[in-house]
Amino acid sequence: MGVPAAFERLMLCLARLPGVGRRSAERIALRLVRGRDALLDDMIGALSEARALVCSCSLCGSITDRDRNPCELCSGAGRDEGLLCVVEEPGDILLIERSGGFKGRYHALMGKLSPGRGNGPDEIRIDSLLKRVSGGSFREVILALSTDVEGDATASYIVHRLSGSGVRISRLAFGLPAGSGIAYSDPVTLARAIRGRTDEEGADAAGR
Amino acid sequence: MGVPAAFERLMLCLARLPGVGRRSAERIALRLVRGRDALLDDMIGALSEARALVCSCSLCGSITDRDRNPCELCSGAGRDEGLLCVVEEPGDILLIERSGGFKGRYHALMGKLSPGRGNGPDEIRIDSLLKRVSGGSFREVILALSTDVEGDATASYIVHRLSGSGVRISRLAFGLPAGSGIAYSDPVTLARAIRGRTDEEGADAAGR
Repeated sequence: MGVPAAFERLMLCLARLPGVGRRSAERIALRLVRGRDALLDDMIGALSEARALVCSCSLCGSITDRDRNPCELCSGAGRDEGLLCVVEEPGDILLIERSGGFKGRYHALMGKLSPGRGNGPDEIRIDSLLKRVSGGSFREVILALSTDVEGDATASYIVHRLSGSGVRISRLAFGLPAGSGIAYSDPVTLARAIRGRTDEEGADAAGR
Repeated sequence: MGVPAAFERLMLCLARLPGVGRRSAERIALRLVRGRDALLDDMIGALSEARALVCSCSLCGSITDRDRNPCELCSGAGRDEGLLCVVEEPGDILLIERSGGFKGRYHALMGKLSPGRGNGPDEIRIDSLLKRVSGGSFREVILALSTDVEGDATASYIVHRLSGSGVRISRLAFGLPAGSGIAYSDPVTLARAIRGRTDEEGADAAGR
């Protein structure tokens, strides 16, 4: 039995979503065309609304309302104007905001350097980053990039391009994740956690 | 930072899809609004097309083109007119068709009996099943329902309602799944596989 062509096309489109394989795409498509509780209509409505109202911030690349561009992270007060956090994806900005660990400005590269996949410096937002930093208002650029080879390459490239700018460049600490331990750690993480060890507050200085 | 309201609504809508939690919904929504390779447009197009062209077959409940209702499984030739396979969802029909193990007609209940979730006989397609069977062309009804409590209850209810119809009622075999073994089996499956054991072809009759 062949499924309807329009159903097949819907499945193929759904399978392009992150984390959705062919099997899940079929399950989702079946759920959508079943007609229960108007999910198909709601989905078309929500997508159309997002298309009309949501865009990427022209400055940092985060998601924002079309009528609030630059976004509130870029234009809002009460944030440290001297700190710029460089991330790969807009979603990373949401995660960092939720962590509450940062109150500066952001710059999403929209990817990372990846020669294998044809992602060179021109494919990601490196130029606009250099322009923002050379603007002169930042005293520190924090690289919040992945800890894989491509993230490392991207970080090295940015360090190279910003050398001589007089701006401090830092990278997020490597180490054990919270709620984890040595038993669950891989050798690379462990070696980096040892290298980056920190002094315990309140420890006896003589014992160090 | 608050995300745009339209983005939040898109996430909530995506989280209603099967297998998509809040975290995946955010990841999918970010991917959609990123604007790369026009996925958002494609998705709206595919959903609108599915809404316009795909429907449930009025007879078996399977998905079909709007201009081919009843579907080809119901109207097509070369299938055994005396066999009716009862399933819970339209997706089950696709799976059985792919197995190649059945060449009769289908009836999707669009659910199963579940008093806890308010799913009584009126909420699923039991009446239309009884009507089809009393039409008199089927010699056997095969219940291809889940092997959980609700599937068992649904099967019992259908057996009860069809008693006296003179139609044979069968249920799919319980047992070990292919490519598995006793070590991976739960006690209920194992007990049912023992009870439903089958004679090996070619075995010596005296040895049984």
